[in-house]
Amino acid sequence: MSLDGFVAGPAQSLEHPLGIGGEALHEWAFATRAFRESHGDDGGELGIDDDHAASWSRNVGATIMGRNMFGPVRGGWGDETWNGWWGDDPPYHTPVFVLTHHPRASVEMDGGTTFHFVADGIESALDRALAAAGEQDVMIAGGASTAQQYLRAGLVDEMEIHVVPALLGRGERLFDDLGDASAGFECIELVSSPAVAHYRYVRRTAS
Amino acid sequence: MSLDGFVAGPAQSLEHPLGIGGEALHEWAFATRAFRESHGDDGGELGIDDDHAASWSRNVGATIMGRNMFGPVRGGWGDETWNGWWGDDPPYHTPVFVLTHHPRASVEMDGGTTFHFVADGIESALDRALAAAGEQDVMIAGGASTAQQYLRAGLVDEMEIHVVPALLGRGERLFDDLGDASAGFECIELVSSPAVAHYRYVRRTAS
Repeated sequence: MSLDGFVAGPAQSLEHPLGIGGEALHEWAFATRAFRESHGDDGGELGIDDDHAASWSRNVGATIMGRNMFGPVRGGWGDETWNGWWGDDPPYHTPVFVLTHHPRASVEMDGGTTFHFVADGIESALDRALAAAGEQDVMIAGGASTAQQYLRAGLVDEMEIHVVPALLGRGERLFDDLGDASAGFECIELVSSPAVAHYRYVRRTAS
Repeated sequence: MSLDGFVAGPAQSLEHPLGIGGEALHEWAFATRAFRESHGDDGGELGIDDDHAASWSRNVGATIMGRNMFGPVRGGWGDETWNGWWGDDPPYHTPVFVLTHHPRASVEMDGGTTFHFVADGIESALDRALAAAGEQDVMIAGGASTAQQYLRAGLVDEMEIHVVPALLGRGERLFDDLGDASAGFECIELVSSPAVAHYRYVRRTAS
């Protein structure tokens, strides 16, 4: 997230998957070993930022994402040739449940990623993801609208927010229209590198 | 600022000067030696947070604040008995220029703070503050609306943003309606304690 609250820049498109200026949100991650490893690359830096990038795959058994994170296609799927931004071997390496209003057959990719398209709502997607994950966690990867829907429904147990110093000015806000939905979280960790501060939250259990 | 972008909670009032839940934004500062010293108290913690709280008074020769930061009185000043939230010896110890639509005579407090009421606009307030500050800096103390007005006018040279893990859900957003006004800043420092992350920016000079 940018310091001014955006998790993607404005005008997302095939040319600008993260919106204009959105790459600045992820530069800290590109440098880490965990990120590079998940994308099939060697090398990368260790340290605080790597520890947090690693949490995106550590004990994750299934992933949920919104339609707009999966791709720039809007409306129906057309000829169904769009299989995500990530090439043949996406960095998820789990079943990925894509929220959509348009049903589509599942697509098995290389490296353990299979895209399933869920057209009957966020609870259904979560149920299927939990079943697929078994003992492991389900990660809600984004984007902003998907995260907000799960937060408003009270279905998020943990949050990790990585705040970079970028100031985008406009784009997709993460913490918007949430009202009291964010009130139940407690910060259990705040650490930073010169590039990013990592905030980790857990839902408070009823006392 | 809360992680969700608010610099005050909702429903600011005499009872809740920082808005409901707004105290959570300042708890890290209350613990520091610099904050306690500016309020005439002994003791307090040293370290990263103290270093950043100290920057509010280091080399500051004049202060600007909005009317709503000065007090809960709206409209005319009535019997002019309201002299701020801070008692006889406010923590500013400089001339303080209060933006208002309602002229009022200056009020000299103890400890070097004098409140001046400026009814002819933000540029006028800045001119007077710069003259009063001499070789020292002018601090724009807040609140959100005042900061936004100076940012939109391109009159801010440096920013320090202290982001706490609190999630207020609603209140006064700092980075709102700014568009490109925040684009010219470069982060020159990001450090954190377990309680707060400090982001420091300077305006990029034209190259």
